[in-house]
Amino acid sequence: MRTIDWVDGAVELIDQTALPAELRILRISAVDDLIAAIRTLAVRGAPALGVAGAFGVALAARQFAADADGLADAVRRMESARPTAVNLARGARRAAAKLPDGPEAVLREACAVRDEEIAASEAMAARGADLMVELCGSRARLLTHCNTGALAAVTVGTALGVVGELHKRGALAGVIASETRPLLQGARLTAWELTQWGIDFRVAVDSAGPFLMARGEVDAIILGADRICANGDVINKIGTYAHALGARRAALPFVVVAPESTVDLATPDGAAVEIEDRGAAEVTGYSAAVNPAFDITPHDLVTAIVTERRVIRLDRGESPG
Amino acid sequence: MRTIDWVDGAVELIDQTALPAELRILRISAVDDLIAAIRTLAVRGAPALGVAGAFGVALAARQFAADADGLADAVRRMESARPTAVNLARGARRAAAKLPDGPEAVLREACAVRDEEIAASEAMAARGADLMVELCGSRARLLTHCNTGALAAVTVGTALGVVGELHKRGALAGVIASETRPLLQGARLTAWELTQWGIDFRVAVDSAGPFLMARGEVDAIILGADRICANGDVINKIGTYAHALGARRAALPFVVVAPESTVDLATPDGAAVEIEDRGAAEVTGYSAAVNPAFDITPHDLVTAIVTERRVIRLDRGESPG
Repeated sequence: MRTIDWVDGAVELIDQTALPAELRILRISAVDDLIAAIRTLAVRGAPALGVAGAFGVALAARQFAADADGLADAVRRMESARPTAVNLARGARRAAAKLPDGPEAVLREACAVRDEEIAASEAMAARGADLMVELCGSRARLLTHCNTGALAAVTVGTALGVVGELHKRGALAGVIASETRPLLQGARLTAWELTQWGIDFRVAVDSAGPFLMARGEVDAIILGADRICANGDVINKIGTYAHALGARRAALPFVVVAPESTVDLATPDGAAVEIEDRGAAEVTGYSAAVNPAFDITPHDLVTAIVTERRVIRLDRGESPG
Repeated sequence: MRTIDWVDGAVELIDQTALPAELRILRISAVDDLIAAIRTLAVRGAPALGVAGAFGVALAARQFAADADGLADAVRRMESARPTAVNLARGARRAAAKLPDGPEAVLREACAVRDEEIAASEAMAARGADLMVELCGSRARLLTHCNTGALAAVTVGTALGVVGELHKRGALAGVIASETRPLLQGARLTAWELTQWGIDFRVAVDSAGPFLMARGEVDAIILGADRICANGDVINKIGTYAHALGARRAALPFVVVAPESTVDLATPDGAAVEIEDRGAAEVTGYSAAVNPAFDITPHDLVTAIVTERRVIRLDRGESPG
């Protein structure tokens, strides 16, 4: 099953805000509706956002076929619907590069973006599982954060794809999914996917992760990325950095799984990335809040980054750039 | 205002589960009702639990005046209603030591426990504020976790009492309250108290704390303790350890404020403490969970512990024992 796809002239996607209560499919034919779905996190996850960005330009190419200014504006708004993940702008720009060749060429490129993300997921799952067995042996107890499954990446997923592959190999001894406040992508989405896959898991509040590591309940941490900088700094869901600090203190491997489309060599380091603040309403309805949606994990805290093409061993001095 | 007190032959306390929506006072005259209030966290916070434990034995002494076995059993259940905070058992035992002298003697001792906690709060506020000015200068931006205000300590509070004192002195430049999942003692209770006091603050999800420190938005971390071990290890609300790791990485002071009644020299270190797991229902209604209510912060991550009698500079090799 594909969690986002092009079906009969429109984008169809699982509404991630409705899970786990309801499996609702949104059918979207207008650019602004897709931008709204991205902003409300009906679709989220760096690879899925790349596909959404490309499909969004394909929608725009049809919707604004006779309105060049409207088209340019729609493409710009699609690219910048969320600022932190590099995939969204990159997917949109790839599709937009085909605009001179007409709407069908744009759609072909968008489908290519989708197909590449699917292929990348499958390759990462295999490569990541090999690495985890190398790092943790044949019965790993893993902690993961946010959602990095098929919902985040069309099919299979990134870090959660590796978890699924380890399960298939009989090499998984346990999963802790941190709930991922404020929007509970772990407790809602990862829990839902693991349940679909028949994998046992326990949810923990985000702040428990480092303590569970210290208490010896975790063999490694595996999670995704929204952007990987040239020096190996990782931009990912808020809480990633705190988990990395816990892993370092407990001397546990901290592994990031993300496609090459997430690697942004034009961004030298984490300090150069705009961190989206999503406002107080997500955190508490009754008081002021500071709500950075992402954080920066310095490269020295990362053991390895797994992409579809390579394993970058930051613990051995390698870097993405 | 006292958040827990003995009024006309019964215990009266603010129901902390109802805040911030409603300021509801519970009036309790039966031991089992007080135990239930402790278990549901209607009353919580190490110093307040000490007072509750002592008042609980005063209730028991009246309720079981003619039933020695029932009385002994009630005292035992009161002591162990929650296992991690040392204050509860200590308060109950202090009152129980007066049982041979009759119910009025027990009540006098329970009121003495209350009065000592009130005096301790006031002394800690002054001593803690002096230390924070010494560590951070005259305009500190503080991050605090869980609730350590009057709700947790009859009046004033421990760490939050220091925050209030700094505000009075004009030495407070900002407060971030971490929301404290799963029960949101920060977002609900600390936010409510700070609002009462007229102190501006922002709430953050727990996992954002270390990142906000790294980003330079915090000058020091100040929080309470449920138990302080002889070697200086601190047992406190889950998430304390993660914040301590963030503070260390950002080279920020990490200050614990707690009364001497929390210092337990009979517990050599954190590994000796039973960590209460409060079950899955608090975390997520729809899946398994691991839910440690507290964690252990190793003493090497703690800058200083402030009590009503002393400042223990762990960063200079001092220890409580």
